[in-house]
Amino acid sequence: MTLYENLAEAIETRIRQGLYRPGDRLPSVRSLGIEHGVSLSTVQQAYRVLEDKRLAVPRAKSGYYVPETRQVPELPQATRGTQRPVDVSQWEQVLDLMSEEPSEHLTQFGRGRPDIDSPTLKPLTRALSRFGRQQSLSGLTYGSIQGNLQLREQIARLMLDSGCQTPASELIITNGCHEALSTAIRALCVPGDVVAVDSPAFHGVMQALKGFGLKALELPTDPIEGISLEALEMALEQWPIKVLQLTPSCNNPLGYSMPDHKKRALLALAQRYDLAIIEDDVYGDLAYRYPRPRTIKSFDEDGRVLLCSSFSKSIAPGLRTGWIAPGRYYDQVLHMKYMGSGPTATLPQLAMSAFIEGGHFDPHLRRMRHLYQRSRDQMIEWVGRYFPENAKASRPEGSFMLWVELEEGFDSLRLNKLLRPKGIQIAPGSIFSAAGKYRNCLRMSYAARPTPQIEAAVREVGEVAKTLLTSHD
Amino acid sequence: MTLYENLAEAIETRIRQGLYRPGDRLPSVRSLGIEHGVSLSTVQQAYRVLEDKRLAVPRAKSGYYVPETRQVPELPQATRGTQRPVDVSQWEQVLDLMSEEPSEHLTQFGRGRPDIDSPTLKPLTRALSRFGRQQSLSGLTYGSIQGNLQLREQIARLMLDSGCQTPASELIITNGCHEALSTAIRALCVPGDVVAVDSPAFHGVMQALKGFGLKALELPTDPIEGISLEALEMALEQWPIKVLQLTPSCNNPLGYSMPDHKKRALLALAQRYDLAIIEDDVYGDLAYRYPRPRTIKSFDEDGRVLLCSSFSKSIAPGLRTGWIAPGRYYDQVLHMKYMGSGPTATLPQLAMSAFIEGGHFDPHLRRMRHLYQRSRDQMIEWVGRYFPENAKASRPEGSFMLWVELEEGFDSLRLNKLLRPKGIQIAPGSIFSAAGKYRNCLRMSYAARPTPQIEAAVREVGEVAKTLLTSHD
Repeated sequence: MTLYENLAEAIETRIRQGLYRPGDRLPSVRSLGIEHGVSLSTVQQAYRVLEDKRLAVPRAKSGYYVPETRQVPELPQATRGTQRPVDVSQWEQVLDLMSEEPSEHLTQFGRGRPDIDSPTLKPLTRALSRFGRQQSLSGLTYGSIQGNLQLREQIARLMLDSGCQTPASELIITNGCHEALSTAIRALCVPGDVVAVDSPAFHGVMQALKGFGLKALELPTDPIEGISLEALEMALEQWPIKVLQLTPSCNNPLGYSMPDHKKRALLALAQRYDLAIIEDDVYGDLAYRYPRPRTIKSFDEDGRVLLCSSFSKSIAPGLRTGWIAPGRYYDQVLHMKYMGSGPTATLPQLAMSAFIEGGHFDPHLRRMRHLYQRSRDQMIEWVGRYFPENAKASRPEGSFMLWVELEEGFDSLRLNKLLRPKGIQIAPGSIFSAAGKYRNCLRMSYAARPTPQIEAAVREVGEVAKTLLTSHD
Repeated sequence: MTLYENLAEAIETRIRQGLYRPGDRLPSVRSLGIEHGVSLSTVQQAYRVLEDKRLAVPRAKSGYYVPETRQVPELPQATRGTQRPVDVSQWEQVLDLMSEEPSEHLTQFGRGRPDIDSPTLKPLTRALSRFGRQQSLSGLTYGSIQGNLQLREQIARLMLDSGCQTPASELIITNGCHEALSTAIRALCVPGDVVAVDSPAFHGVMQALKGFGLKALELPTDPIEGISLEALEMALEQWPIKVLQLTPSCNNPLGYSMPDHKKRALLALAQRYDLAIIEDDVYGDLAYRYPRPRTIKSFDEDGRVLLCSSFSKSIAPGLRTGWIAPGRYYDQVLHMKYMGSGPTATLPQLAMSAFIEGGHFDPHLRRMRHLYQRSRDQMIEWVGRYFPENAKASRPEGSFMLWVELEEGFDSLRLNKLLRPKGIQIAPGSIFSAAGKYRNCLRMSYAARPTPQIEAAVREVGEVAKTLLTSHD
């Protein structure tokens, strides 16, 4: 580090520690020069660095000040949905994202990978190691098609936290939430059917709709409260909607949790129109507030909600251990699960069951919630600092995904292409829409601990985005 | 053990050791009584036990003899196929089989579980344990949707054994062969399509056809040479067949391997009618003769063969690590794999890759082939000895499944129900047919080492089958 970089960092630390508060005057160039024994031009260079970072603003003839308020990006607008059911596109873009192997040389903001370095996961790796060593009647053999009973019992217990009283006998273990969702969709729909979805929505579901020949009707979605029930009701009047699929708690990618009263109202509407609901709850356990939000399933009285979830976000994605509580559609779903892939891998089920039974799940979750919440604040701050002026950002109430909206006409696909040689990947917004909307948006994971390297990468994304906007003008 | 049981066992041992050969006269009742110091009635009781086991036959006024030739069951007849494409049924029966958790209290002849107790699997459990312990960038994180590259490279190398030169880049890792097959079927077909299959055929494929709204055309199949190409050609003339799905090497459940010249002829036919072939090779590596049979894929020149396989039978099923080499259908299949379940569990992939790279795959395979071949001979002998007179049995050329055919009208579903309270399960033949044929057949696994307990269970199956035949008359 050069002298001025050292100095800039020292001042930055003081600002972050609150020694200088918003609106405060920062030490003069002269006094800093004396204090640190450096030349005036070195101090000026240091202030230029701080200016770039928006940590210092110059006032004419008065020196440098901490900016009055740190700029917090505005919320994205409520989305508008599609006018009619559409065929799903964008597979190439999803494939691009999914083909990447984890690597130290890639800062991966694009994929939904949780932080798996926490020491609270030690008991899990120990269990994997222990069960891995055993041969007979253990991780190496087929389990039942329903999945390991002990694990299902543990999941049933965990589900009480979200208000669900679902017995183990009504759960089916799947290869992650992804298989739970696609199995549910296939069990309920035939080609040509219309599925209503929140918008933006998980690309895995979008692609499943595409693959099974279904049409997606994207519903207008508020970044704080979720899908518009009014719009849903209008759509139900107008189109033969077979299923509603949504992620109402710690939504991916928007981050909101739909309020309880709205979840109840949605269920009443579903009853009136005899609509099945596929509820993706994979991020629900990562809500920052406690108790975690209730699931729609927890209000369900006639088994019309199929709850899909997994440990991929709360624990570790490589386990591919998910589940589905299919309510009254149990038989069809079990059949479809068998057809799709047969029984689920045994070893991760045994290890997860031991991990939960040993009381390790809750402490891990508490820790991760806390870490992710701090990282959220940091990420929002960085986006405010480094991204183009009008960038808007979501306010996730859980999980580790930030949705960033740039001005109309911005091209996140081009952004991704330009970032690639720099070893950075983001998720372009268009993969979250059947119709390819949200190309001006991107989703960024903040699961990785905020380090100077991560900050540099966020800044890089912002810088490249700015050049794109300039060339776009 | 009682006196006469002890004695019977002693004589049986001598017969098995070859001290008495087929056609030999066995010691007289009198001389045995003196030799062993037991009463004549005890000797007679012992001989009755041996009679029951068909190890001794009485001749009038001449005493007991070792039967002239040990009775080897005849081969099953060639099957006849269905007259037209049919909808698939029998899900309830499959579910019954698949719902069973492994248990010490159940002798499970029904499911396709390999022997996982072999010491040659130690390096695998060590690898599972080792990778299980690691947290970062290992078994806990998502891999790419194509699957771990190192594992794909190892598989590509193994595939050379079956004559295939398929690079790692043309392979996709799946949740077992089951997902490979269902993914292939879904990638190629739309509801209403006709899929031709060997008959009997793997129930997983049958149910996949059912679930995806496809019709099955069952082809007449010879228990030594496989499907009738003449029948296939006639069917191709008559019906709009989209895909042929078959298991040509170490067929499940019939055990045959289709000869190479017939595999070539089949491929020529497929080219003439532009037919795609989904080849299930999951048992191919377990062929008793070396080199193992070539795959149809190995003769394929224009990428119309989709090869599906896994380590579920050769190594361990609980890993759920399979693969597909989809030829020219790569893009569709990869998309369908993503839609169905996302990436495959990481830890088993890492462990399998290390296991193969460490040179442990071939020794394990050699050992298992040898063990299974011996068990096959033993199982066929037991079926000859304990099953009803006219029972026919297949001559598996690999794997660990025996197909037994009883007389017309025999009900293997009832057999299974009666066996259940005795802690025994078989696979009823009807689950291997779309049309519910082969109810008079059953499939029995001989993967478990032949012990007196297993012999007793086989005998029990035979005994109950006999009572069913009697009540049926």
